[in-house]
Amino acid sequence: MNTEKILLDHGSGGKISHALFADLILPLFDNPELSCQDDGAILDFEPGRLAFSTDSYVVDPIFFPGGNIGDLAVNGTINDIAMCGAVPKVISAGLILEEGFLLKDLKIILESMASGAKKAGVKIVTGDTKVVPKGKADKIFINTSGIGILPSGIHVSGNNAKPGDQIILSGTLADHGIAVLTAREGLSFESDIQTDSAALNTMTRQIIESGCDVHVFRDPTRGGLGTTLNEIAVQSKVGIKIYEPSLPIKGSVQGVCELLGFDPLYIANEGKLICFTSKQDAQKTLEIIQKNEFGKDAAIIGEVTHTDPGVVLLQTAIGGVRLVDMLTGEQLPRIC
Amino acid sequence: MNTEKILLDHGSGGKISHALFADLILPLFDNPELSCQDDGAILDFEPGRLAFSTDSYVVDPIFFPGGNIGDLAVNGTINDIAMCGAVPKVISAGLILEEGFLLKDLKIILESMASGAKKAGVKIVTGDTKVVPKGKADKIFINTSGIGILPSGIHVSGNNAKPGDQIILSGTLADHGIAVLTAREGLSFESDIQTDSAALNTMTRQIIESGCDVHVFRDPTRGGLGTTLNEIAVQSKVGIKIYEPSLPIKGSVQGVCELLGFDPLYIANEGKLICFTSKQDAQKTLEIIQKNEFGKDAAIIGEVTHTDPGVVLLQTAIGGVRLVDMLTGEQLPRIC
Repeated sequence: MNTEKILLDHGSGGKISHALFADLILPLFDNPELSCQDDGAILDFEPGRLAFSTDSYVVDPIFFPGGNIGDLAVNGTINDIAMCGAVPKVISAGLILEEGFLLKDLKIILESMASGAKKAGVKIVTGDTKVVPKGKADKIFINTSGIGILPSGIHVSGNNAKPGDQIILSGTLADHGIAVLTAREGLSFESDIQTDSAALNTMTRQIIESGCDVHVFRDPTRGGLGTTLNEIAVQSKVGIKIYEPSLPIKGSVQGVCELLGFDPLYIANEGKLICFTSKQDAQKTLEIIQKNEFGKDAAIIGEVTHTDPGVVLLQTAIGGVRLVDMLTGEQLPRIC
Repeated sequence: MNTEKILLDHGSGGKISHALFADLILPLFDNPELSCQDDGAILDFEPGRLAFSTDSYVVDPIFFPGGNIGDLAVNGTINDIAMCGAVPKVISAGLILEEGFLLKDLKIILESMASGAKKAGVKIVTGDTKVVPKGKADKIFINTSGIGILPSGIHVSGNNAKPGDQIILSGTLADHGIAVLTAREGLSFESDIQTDSAALNTMTRQIIESGCDVHVFRDPTRGGLGTTLNEIAVQSKVGIKIYEPSLPIKGSVQGVCELLGFDPLYIANEGKLICFTSKQDAQKTLEIIQKNEFGKDAAIIGEVTHTDPGVVLLQTAIGGVRLVDMLTGEQLPRIC
């Protein structure tokens, strides 16, 4: 048998599935919950509120500068939970593999998942592996779902933005989307642009523990900052104004965007958050974010207005104002 | 725009993604947690232990006699949680769609998910939709993850089988696998064989509430009864003996298996459980199962032995004994 590639048998639920789990997955994700090998993981939780989130990852290519689909999938779900104001505790991993997928690539991806989870203090406690015949999927798709604990008294939601709130962006825009783009066939640039994929749960925890008056956390992934701000404007029925000169963006990323006609406002980020706080706590929150390893380029980029509910406006560098709509059409399919 | 097919834009995270969610998904799965439209769902839980499980569904074809990938995905994860002895409460839905997939088919599948969840008393509280270009996935893959509450004092696990335990199977073998097989191109039989896909959480709850001394619940899905019993024999380090004449199987299913050379012991079931109980509680447990709508064909099919730890033996109708190994190789790929 060719043991260097994924076979349909790896998804059979039988002997070879068990060998894949025992030899590759369990040693990497090792923890008591997963070791039980029951149909689900049993978890002890304190009383209170939980956050529960899911995301599937279909990024193309699966390896790109600074990361791969594995750490992306782990960080992405950790961030979705963290954006609820919760402390992520456990995640699941559901793999869909294409027959013929290289075991060595699977190993690299699983190692990235394990190290990403470890770094973020999260355990991968349950999982599932399916295999489909060659040509019926594209290499590997990963679903991660996760559970976090919401500290009492915290209400962070996209429907909680209030007029006067200041909007902080935790770092440079569009790094992930442009990194994936540059890795795509026929679109390779001489550039050092890397994905920003990172787990932001430490950053959100630091902000919450500081007692700052946070109203909204959100990570501007698919659809980018422009779409995310529109979602919040609609959910909270408020207007949002952002200042173009305040938007942090790397020169190299800006260059690629200009060359190819992409608007960085709509390009995916995977290690950035936006944080809405009351005006009096904005500076303190900004400083907390800037001290975090993933927040050094953070900036206050805008504010919530009384006027124009549901509308996002951009004040440009030359003083004009333009409407920032939700993304229409797809700039970059399979970005996450 | 062609609104009858899934477009890449439906996975963009932008306007068209939001329209799909607002127009199709939210009305079907309607509940307060999902309506919040934050990155995750916020859930109130009592203190205690939770069960957490995940499964991806890649069944081919997506429609088959008696069901489709949607109810299969919902019932499957509900059952994984129920098999932990827990009461399933919420599930997530992660969709991966192929560009060009028919919206009318998606609607049927989502309706099946919604009605399956409703029937089982479970809410679909969070989700995600990705779209990949045509040819990069096969129509639709669905991941469901779920959370259930484990009543205090319950320890039901594959590592908890004890010598002397009686083994109850809740109904006929191999219905799901053979139903899917008959639906596959070029393999259509004149038969009324339907999937047994069903949520078994009411059955497990009834058994637990009866106070019967349950040691193991497990649903024999991929790999079938043979593989599942092997897993338990290994996990619990016990021997298992089952009696061939006691195994419930429909005549039509048996006929297809014989015609095509399949062993029903290794064919997937999606609405059956096996239950290990202490000897004195076996008859009472059997009666509870038989009174449940999905348990009328339940039977005691075997017992746990002191001898041969890790080994499953079948006592045949003519009095011989043969080894039941774990499934090696894949009889029926993409059965769930």
